[in-house]
Amino acid sequence: MTYCVGLKLDSGLVMMSDTRTNAGVDNISVFRKMFLWEEEGERSITLMTAGNLATTQAVVSLINERSRAADERGILSIMEAPSMFQVAKLLGETLREVIKSQSAPDGPEAEATFSATMILGGQIKGGEPCLFLIYPEGNFVEASADTPFFQIGETKYGKPILVRAYEPDMSFEDAVKLLMLSFDSTIKANLSVGLPLDLHLYKRETFSHGQIIRIEQGDPFYEMISSGWGEALRDAFQKLPPYRLD
Amino acid sequence: MTYCVGLKLDSGLVMMSDTRTNAGVDNISVFRKMFLWEEEGERSITLMTAGNLATTQAVVSLINERSRAADERGILSIMEAPSMFQVAKLLGETLREVIKSQSAPDGPEAEATFSATMILGGQIKGGEPCLFLIYPEGNFVEASADTPFFQIGETKYGKPILVRAYEPDMSFEDAVKLLMLSFDSTIKANLSVGLPLDLHLYKRETFSHGQIIRIEQGDPFYEMISSGWGEALRDAFQKLPPYRLD
Repeated sequence: MTYCVGLKLDSGLVMMSDTRTNAGVDNISVFRKMFLWEEEGERSITLMTAGNLATTQAVVSLINERSRAADERGILSIMEAPSMFQVAKLLGETLREVIKSQSAPDGPEAEATFSATMILGGQIKGGEPCLFLIYPEGNFVEASADTPFFQIGETKYGKPILVRAYEPDMSFEDAVKLLMLSFDSTIKANLSVGLPLDLHLYKRETFSHGQIIRIEQGDPFYEMISSGWGEALRDAFQKLPPYRLD
Repeated sequence: MTYCVGLKLDSGLVMMSDTRTNAGVDNISVFRKMFLWEEEGERSITLMTAGNLATTQAVVSLINERSRAADERGILSIMEAPSMFQVAKLLGETLREVIKSQSAPDGPEAEATFSATMILGGQIKGGEPCLFLIYPEGNFVEASADTPFFQIGETKYGKPILVRAYEPDMSFEDAVKLLMLSFDSTIKANLSVGLPLDLHLYKRETFSHGQIIRIEQGDPFYEMISSGWGEALRDAFQKLPPYRLD
């Protein structure tokens, strides 16, 4: 599995992904699941992927190829699309196309096997920062004030803390802390999600990549947050009154 | 879905289950998922069920019928089984039998539809308090010091807090608080789990039911724990230092 989260903040977008892929528990590898495209001062696009690795790599390869060959073939590439909505549309279509082409012709089971889901974030000059969740069917939804973040992959363990502590006006520093807690809850509960983590902080109206950070195994801040959170939770637990039995 | 947790403590067993069943989001009902059998001073048995309601109800009905008719038919009933291990075996066999008989003959898909999982806890004179997780295949595992609790149903949201705060020597009062937090995390994240909750506190070496409590919608302690935990989490989050960006 995988775990990726994209947060939409007042000040921009924060995206974090893990890097563990596995085919059975004895076949574990590190693969990047975050992909970035940029035209400095004009657009910054970040994609995070969950699901079949062959599918997601094929999608990214096709997107790259089409960006280079776009002029000749007259097809819009994500580097030319006039809006994030058009970028999402292109990615959704490519995802659907890849899943379809990789699936065997005899049944829906194969389509499930080759399935993938993606989070897309970014900003193009003339538009707002946008965050999309793209489904294997190729359609997508956009983050709004009501649903200001998206998760893909192993999403359940890390959701409660996001629901409780997310604030749209939080700083990037707090957002990174929140994401680390959400990832830590997931990593502690599920073997198929693991460090290192990739992080991209996109500041609104910069139209260029922000800080891109890889958080490695043994990262001192991550370790501190992870053990500090355990203590903080136990403290918080102790402070609540016990149930009163008659 | 469903959410049930059984905790094995030094002082006994604590079992909690929700009561929501649904067939689609517009067909939601309240059903008991916790079932108790007792011979005062000799045995106390608690069963919690998750999965297809027709299956779990059939299992409980069969178990009840066989308890009554046991003498005549010469079959061991759970009220006569000499150990909790034998009770688990009987329940596992009954579960497997029901799933098999309800499934259409043409395929494993039907078996998945009629599937169910159960947590069994209790103590019989001459034995220790035991906690079992029973699989749809009819086999089962027992809780131990390494795995001192079992969850069934919608287990992921409520697992991080259990992992962090469970202690085998905690009091019943603290255990109920912990279970309420675990249920609250789940209920906040997933519509298919809901109040009221059923709770059974079995004190070791009593061989009789302990306190049996139904926690209704609007229960003041539950409400206080739920809102207090939100604040406590946000406090704990604030106390951790933010990530330092260069």
